[in-house]
Amino acid sequence: MDMTTSPSALLPRVNGARLWQSLMDLARIGATPKGGVCRLALTLLDREGRDLFVRWAREAGCSVRIDAIGNIFARRAGRDDTLPPVMTGSHIDTQPTGGKFDGNYGVLAGLEVVRSLNDAGIATEAPIEVAVWTNEEGSRFVPVMMGSGVFANAFTLEHALAQRDAQGISVAEALAAIGYAGTAGPSPAVGAYFEAHIEQGPVLEANDCVIGVVQGALGQRWYDVAVQGMEAHAGPTPMELRRDALLAASALVAEVNRIALGHAPHARGTVGVLEVFPSSRNVIPGSVRMTVDLRAADDAVLLQMDAALRTTCERIGAASRTPMTVEQVVYFPPQPFAPALVEGVRADARALGYTAMDVVSGAGHDAVYLARLAPTAMVFVPCADGISHNEIEDARPEHLEAGCNVLLQGMLRSAGVAA
Amino acid sequence: MDMTTSPSALLPRVNGARLWQSLMDLARIGATPKGGVCRLALTLLDREGRDLFVRWAREAGCSVRIDAIGNIFARRAGRDDTLPPVMTGSHIDTQPTGGKFDGNYGVLAGLEVVRSLNDAGIATEAPIEVAVWTNEEGSRFVPVMMGSGVFANAFTLEHALAQRDAQGISVAEALAAIGYAGTAGPSPAVGAYFEAHIEQGPVLEANDCVIGVVQGALGQRWYDVAVQGMEAHAGPTPMELRRDALLAASALVAEVNRIALGHAPHARGTVGVLEVFPSSRNVIPGSVRMTVDLRAADDAVLLQMDAALRTTCERIGAASRTPMTVEQVVYFPPQPFAPALVEGVRADARALGYTAMDVVSGAGHDAVYLARLAPTAMVFVPCADGISHNEIEDARPEHLEAGCNVLLQGMLRSAGVAA
Repeated sequence: MDMTTSPSALLPRVNGARLWQSLMDLARIGATPKGGVCRLALTLLDREGRDLFVRWAREAGCSVRIDAIGNIFARRAGRDDTLPPVMTGSHIDTQPTGGKFDGNYGVLAGLEVVRSLNDAGIATEAPIEVAVWTNEEGSRFVPVMMGSGVFANAFTLEHALAQRDAQGISVAEALAAIGYAGTAGPSPAVGAYFEAHIEQGPVLEANDCVIGVVQGALGQRWYDVAVQGMEAHAGPTPMELRRDALLAASALVAEVNRIALGHAPHARGTVGVLEVFPSSRNVIPGSVRMTVDLRAADDAVLLQMDAALRTTCERIGAASRTPMTVEQVVYFPPQPFAPALVEGVRADARALGYTAMDVVSGAGHDAVYLARLAPTAMVFVPCADGISHNEIEDARPEHLEAGCNVLLQGMLRSAGVAA
Repeated sequence: MDMTTSPSALLPRVNGARLWQSLMDLARIGATPKGGVCRLALTLLDREGRDLFVRWAREAGCSVRIDAIGNIFARRAGRDDTLPPVMTGSHIDTQPTGGKFDGNYGVLAGLEVVRSLNDAGIATEAPIEVAVWTNEEGSRFVPVMMGSGVFANAFTLEHALAQRDAQGISVAEALAAIGYAGTAGPSPAVGAYFEAHIEQGPVLEANDCVIGVVQGALGQRWYDVAVQGMEAHAGPTPMELRRDALLAASALVAEVNRIALGHAPHARGTVGVLEVFPSSRNVIPGSVRMTVDLRAADDAVLLQMDAALRTTCERIGAASRTPMTVEQVVYFPPQPFAPALVEGVRADARALGYTAMDVVSGAGHDAVYLARLAPTAMVFVPCADGISHNEIEDARPEHLEAGCNVLLQGMLRSAGVAA
């Protein structure tokens, strides 16, 4: 292809260096000695980060409004400002030992889109909004994805405001304390929603791809499983008379893995917590408490996995005389993204000359709630070794720039370039 | 068989009711609300228990001496008091949530033998001694089986005296504080050693047998195993890219069980401790620390099991890219008991009309150290549901009486009835 006439050469581009600098500037607020960020939701550090974003947004010509759960919306007016806004965003709260990019990238990529449109002198038909969603991480307050959840009516504002942290401080109190208990009413309809995010997994890196075209988010079912065996001396108790709760739990760990492998490539099965009682080296475990996390792209598959889990627990429990109880504690349905927007992301990546592949979002994101309200797409970029929620979380400037260029194209297509 | 001429009718018998009453009297010292006993080694409660035993022993005509590690020896003189004593005994320290019978039975069964010989007016050729060994349980001070270990030169007196509890109090200080830092020198040779004990396992009950003829004690190898995987998000990380430390550890749990089953009936394999890091329900475990406890009756078998464990860890670690390290932390060789004495126990049980079966001791006992010094045998009796080291530990008076009768016969045969 003749590069001088390549369509991609005609597309507006973001300023990757400016995006990177903004990420580094924001990362100084709550910076940890190991190079990460600790900026828990609705703390004074969160306020400092929010204030910086609001200042930058206003400097970029945006109007800013805050809603009652503290979500920030920076708005760049459209030519027809009565049209539903084309929105992007993410979050700037972090895990206690979080990184510089999770969430922050999605917010600052949105800001960079606004800045780039300003630089290029491009007006859009519909308004553009950059959202900072409150408390996505859930490290200080549950539920997770609180701001976008309220926005999408997944639960009520009152429920969210009443939640308390480990010190007994409520969300309402914390919002008031940092000055982000806003008054903006229910938002108008959203025209489309985009979210750029680091992948938080190893797939793009393993496939040497720059852009992940996100098909949707996996559904999730989380469980607590209890295994009841019989505590006994490891020495005097022959193997055949044992009711070893850990032996049974271990069989379940293997089966959870097998259940997920049976629905490749998108299904996941994970035991993240397994606690043994009484936990003494010469005592046969009498009981085990464990968690199971099942995920799948298709709700019917997820239901099959649920049934397989329950059958497996019955079978192992009966065979080893260690009854198992299974309690589901969380359910998120699978959330497919809007086919037209997803196709747009794929086309834009190609047009911009980036390697791209279809991926799924295994984790929850604000976009999963927004998809209940509006056509939604996500753009993933690689992170080093797939590591996230960790102070060593890292991403390459050229990848972040690439994702932001794809975001710009998608938003421009949805918002329309004003004549 | 004509019962009136049965040889068993000619044998002297112990007083089962008195034995039971002594057990109940001793169990009041440190009694717990749930019916158990908490009498940790070298505490004031231990002193109270020791004082009661010493009083009872003196009332039964015994001389009492205390050695430097606090072992108590109650001696009933023999006709030829220069002969090596025929010894029995056990311990009266308990686990924090211990029962009335573990250890206490062996001590009070020995006392009942002395009392019964007194009642029957029987003198023995060799002297008889009843030992109370210091700190068998190891709950407050390690190593376990401390008193018998010093007596049998398994480790030095100085090493034992220097050990400290969680509060920093040394064995030497605790012994002095309760007045049981004795001065008795190295013991003379022991003619034979017997120990009566509850089984602490379910085999006798499962086989409806009253007397366990103990062939010896299993050898033990204890290990710490560390599994190194890669912590990652449960959602974004596809199954095939994971290095799940818990999945690998679970495979090892199953293999430890299989290794033991491959050397039935006496081999044991137990994972009692398994700790998962970071232990979060939506994070793939990055590492696991676990223990392995292998036991076998034969040292060559135990060594085969050791090799199998190491090979298995190598294999699983390589296959799942979760390297495992294996560190042995404890080794006790198998300890067979003296064939002649064991045969005597079997014959005496038969002569007394008790059901009996050959068993092994899966747990350590003071007898395991004494067997290094003298011909040794143990007599097991059932405990309810095989439960021990538990406040609900229980045993039936008639079983305890039966075991004590077998003990009496064995000691009489070894000590010889004076003409």
